[in-house]
Amino acid sequence: MLNLNSLVQPLLTDLYQITMAYAYWKNRVHEAPAVFDLFFRKNPFDGEFTVCAGLEEAIRFVTNFKFTDSDIAYLRDGLYQTLEAKQAEFETLLQHGLIKKDTEGYQAQAIDGTWHTVEYPQAPSSVRSVFQDCDPDFFKWLKDVDCSQVKIHAIPEGTLVFPKIPLLTVEGPVAICQLLETTLLNLVNYASLVATNAARFRLAAGPDKLLVEFGLRRAQGPDGALSSSEYCYLGGFDATSNVLAGKLLGMPVRGTHAHSFVSSFMEFEDLPTHDLVGTNGQKYDFVAMVKSIRTALNFTRTNTGELAAFIAYAQSFPNSFLALVDTYDTLHSGVPNFICVAIALLNIGYKPLGIRLDSGDLAYLSKEACHIFKTAFDYYQISGYKPIIMASNDINEETLHSLKQQGHEIDAFGIGTHLVTCQKQPALGCVYKLVEIKQHQRIKLSQEKSKMTIPGQKRAYRLIGKEGYPLLDLMMAAGESEPTPGSKILCRHPFEAAKRAYVIPSQVIPLHHCVWNGHRTYPVVPLGKKRQFVLDQLKLFREDHLRPLNPTPYKISVSDNLYHFLHDLWLEESPIDEIS
Amino acid sequence: MLNLNSLVQPLLTDLYQITMAYAYWKNRVHEAPAVFDLFFRKNPFDGEFTVCAGLEEAIRFVTNFKFTDSDIAYLRDGLYQTLEAKQAEFETLLQHGLIKKDTEGYQAQAIDGTWHTVEYPQAPSSVRSVFQDCDPDFFKWLKDVDCSQVKIHAIPEGTLVFPKIPLLTVEGPVAICQLLETTLLNLVNYASLVATNAARFRLAAGPDKLLVEFGLRRAQGPDGALSSSEYCYLGGFDATSNVLAGKLLGMPVRGTHAHSFVSSFMEFEDLPTHDLVGTNGQKYDFVAMVKSIRTALNFTRTNTGELAAFIAYAQSFPNSFLALVDTYDTLHSGVPNFICVAIALLNIGYKPLGIRLDSGDLAYLSKEACHIFKTAFDYYQISGYKPIIMASNDINEETLHSLKQQGHEIDAFGIGTHLVTCQKQPALGCVYKLVEIKQHQRIKLSQEKSKMTIPGQKRAYRLIGKEGYPLLDLMMAAGESEPTPGSKILCRHPFEAAKRAYVIPSQVIPLHHCVWNGHRTYPVVPLGKKRQFVLDQLKLFREDHLRPLNPTPYKISVSDNLYHFLHDLWLEESPIDEIS
Repeated sequence: MLNLNSLVQPLLTDLYQITMAYAYWKNRVHEAPAVFDLFFRKNPFDGEFTVCAGLEEAIRFVTNFKFTDSDIAYLRDGLYQTLEAKQAEFETLLQHGLIKKDTEGYQAQAIDGTWHTVEYPQAPSSVRSVFQDCDPDFFKWLKDVDCSQVKIHAIPEGTLVFPKIPLLTVEGPVAICQLLETTLLNLVNYASLVATNAARFRLAAGPDKLLVEFGLRRAQGPDGALSSSEYCYLGGFDATSNVLAGKLLGMPVRGTHAHSFVSSFMEFEDLPTHDLVGTNGQKYDFVAMVKSIRTALNFTRTNTGELAAFIAYAQSFPNSFLALVDTYDTLHSGVPNFICVAIALLNIGYKPLGIRLDSGDLAYLSKEACHIFKTAFDYYQISGYKPIIMASNDINEETLHSLKQQGHEIDAFGIGTHLVTCQKQPALGCVYKLVEIKQHQRIKLSQEKSKMTIPGQKRAYRLIGKEGYPLLDLMMAAGESEPTPGSKILCRHPFEAAKRAYVIPSQVIPLHHCVWNGHRTYPVVPLGKKRQFVLDQLKLFREDHLRPLNPTPYKISVSDNLYHFLHDLWLEESPIDEIS
Repeated sequence: MLNLNSLVQPLLTDLYQITMAYAYWKNRVHEAPAVFDLFFRKNPFDGEFTVCAGLEEAIRFVTNFKFTDSDIAYLRDGLYQTLEAKQAEFETLLQHGLIKKDTEGYQAQAIDGTWHTVEYPQAPSSVRSVFQDCDPDFFKWLKDVDCSQVKIHAIPEGTLVFPKIPLLTVEGPVAICQLLETTLLNLVNYASLVATNAARFRLAAGPDKLLVEFGLRRAQGPDGALSSSEYCYLGGFDATSNVLAGKLLGMPVRGTHAHSFVSSFMEFEDLPTHDLVGTNGQKYDFVAMVKSIRTALNFTRTNTGELAAFIAYAQSFPNSFLALVDTYDTLHSGVPNFICVAIALLNIGYKPLGIRLDSGDLAYLSKEACHIFKTAFDYYQISGYKPIIMASNDINEETLHSLKQQGHEIDAFGIGTHLVTCQKQPALGCVYKLVEIKQHQRIKLSQEKSKMTIPGQKRAYRLIGKEGYPLLDLMMAAGESEPTPGSKILCRHPFEAAKRAYVIPSQVIPLHHCVWNGHRTYPVVPLGKKRQFVLDQLKLFREDHLRPLNPTPYKISVSDNLYHFLHDLWLEESPIDEIS
């Protein structure tokens, strides 16, 4: 697999993972077999479902997990930039006169324009390392670490998942599992969050609308943007505006023009040619055609620069003409100008795509635009053609619901900021907790009960009822025998004794698959297939779990055996307070 | 300069930039000289200031701006993955048995475990390209594009900036400037947003608290995380937990241990050695010392596994012992256990760092912990030593203000999610607008007045009053002569005629510097220097502009000349509606 991002490497982690690895190593417990669960505690966006994502990137990270010599040099000695890199930088500055040499040696110009003496880079910069008093043999061990002793079970990407069920369980030597924590969380957290957000936008827009992700300029930097594009598509979007995502991931990419293109034209004289070749191969005076339609329809007070820009764009892309109509005035200039160009294109055999609205009252403008279209097309006796209306401008999930209520004529949405930044809840909050070490199950107690963990290695099953809907997810200890269709099984709330039910599943879907066992053991699933899997599941689940307002929680349960085990361990580990 | 992120490349852009470039080229206006402004319209977080950031990455992007052959192949022919990459992937899957060969040819295993026939990769995948009917000479031009004809003026990183003033102005051939838009926005938007957020957290915490960024696991993927670490530091944080940020950027990195480390120890028998060498070089039975302190202080009901974990950590890092105290029970187990280990360390010459609280009522727990410390240290007649108290757990700007009001004993904060995701407002909303083409100034009108642009190439100046505070920022047309200290100048609100003032500045700071003129013309400013620049400015500005509640807006003005020019153009470009 291509490793898309060179930043995904073992040092992309919190320092405490490495200090803990040292402390495990120093105490000779680093090889102790351990199990960690990666899970979240609450569904995002006040909803009752989450789309899990990020697994493919996690597997790639584990595949390539290896500390380099320069990583080790940084950790052990605090070296943070190579001499070559520093010298190259210095030379560039010298070349452009930002560093100069005079009788006092080298001088560099500071932010306020003043000059200060600097030294030519002699040796790597270094910072005090927290490891400087540590046993240097640790770094020999660290240099050899890889994931050949690690085993990972995971829920496939695109599965609808719920709180407390591990998305990944990572087994292996405790110190190595610990070193994977932060990066795995980084890769799964945002991917799942934004995929869930995309799925919610899809539910809100309905299955027949075209949804295009426009978030590149507002995402958290370059990779934030690439992750958004990938996982919005996985969550049910149709395309992105991000060209690099198209190149690297093979996703559909969409886009036409911006306001600046419109503003850059002022008059018909800006057009170098008036011609356009029709689909019949014949050359037409396209500008004259547009002008005569403009006169006939009495659209002569529209902005001429805008009309020239539309003509220029249509001459460049006659097969995919889509015009942004709000640069000057949507209904009085943009829409009429689009119509003149669109009719001229239709006349010579092309099928213009439509318009994009980027400001104002989108429901109203889309309906008004349709009226103007209709009048003009009736005049020209054009039938069977309807331009698509695309809308953008700060659209969020609520806007989509509200537009649906108001009624509108929008066919496609371009959605950026609120989609990729996940405005409503900008982080998912997955955690990675130790649940077993040296065959002892561990529990993390907390003054906050929601922060407690479910101990031990577990497997989860989705139990499907006779109507075909998922009834609940059941977690069992790893050794327990799987539930079987047609057989009754007791499913219990993990923390509340009185909440339990006997379930007779019609079908049992094991949620956890072994994806890594020293090497990859799970196929690469094409992105389009994962996307389809999400869309299928949005139909599979009961609608009340998915609705935006007061959704019904989907039940998460544990087996009777796991329930008792969990509660015994809880009591055992809690200190008994003495009150006097 | 090192280019930290391989994803920052010309294709990291919206498709419409490239379709527009084609339309400019096709209409032979691609070389037309143009000026674009990159600016924002509203300060984030209901505040009245923004810290600008991202310039260094923007300059690096411009430096390396060049389309590759594979970029061109993707755009022209829709090729999105090389044959080599596809074949290598296929081979890996074959090797691990996820693809098998039988009499029917190759078969691959799908997500549900079923097998399907697949073909060995023969040729690159391709998608329909929007450019497929375009003039192929465009791609020859595109292949040669670089930034040698581009000129950029910018405001230095770390400057406090305000709405409407361009952070960057980009001059050059219109098609090339257009191709830079999305990537520049991506690089500046989040960087400035998170730097501003960090500066607000710094103001809320006060200048003497240690602030550590903990956001790696909740950021938007790998690079989102690296950007957070860099720009939080620039905005006034002291350190990060992100090791890669330390290695690549030379920033201070902090971290100790997590709950999992504590949970992984169950009893004293888990400790392979009881010894620790003191600062005097002598070996001590450290475990016995801790146990005797525990008995003397009557802390015997604490969790033994936790105490063993603290001992193990102290043996590994005796010089930097900081204990996470909430795994079982903060006041009844964690804090007493820390005290036993800390006193033992003090006895043999080390200075333990302190504790970290990660749940519960942080103000209360920090004060209670101090009481327990005092009682224990009094008993042992330890004076002049106070462990630091670090707090983490979902801290946001409001938490910091509220803690300050309640009173607390916290010395350091670890802040993740709300800092890096910018919970309060997850996007800044910088835009990039054409303001001049072929020496004609352009304006973008909009039904929403706040979306209007200020036309033409401009320079901004910060006018400082006699008290030393900045009075306002003034934008002038690029040709106008600079304001001079001691001379009266008329400063006008850009859109409201009656709002204007004569200003006599004591000092004039030009905000725009030429940073690129076909090559780099501005020095690389070290990250630490940019950070200090932010901290200095937080002291320079009047406090009422910076306060969290109802801050006073800082004034942004235009020269009289620019005011008149702007209003004339506005009227000229607006269509006059006819009402009947």
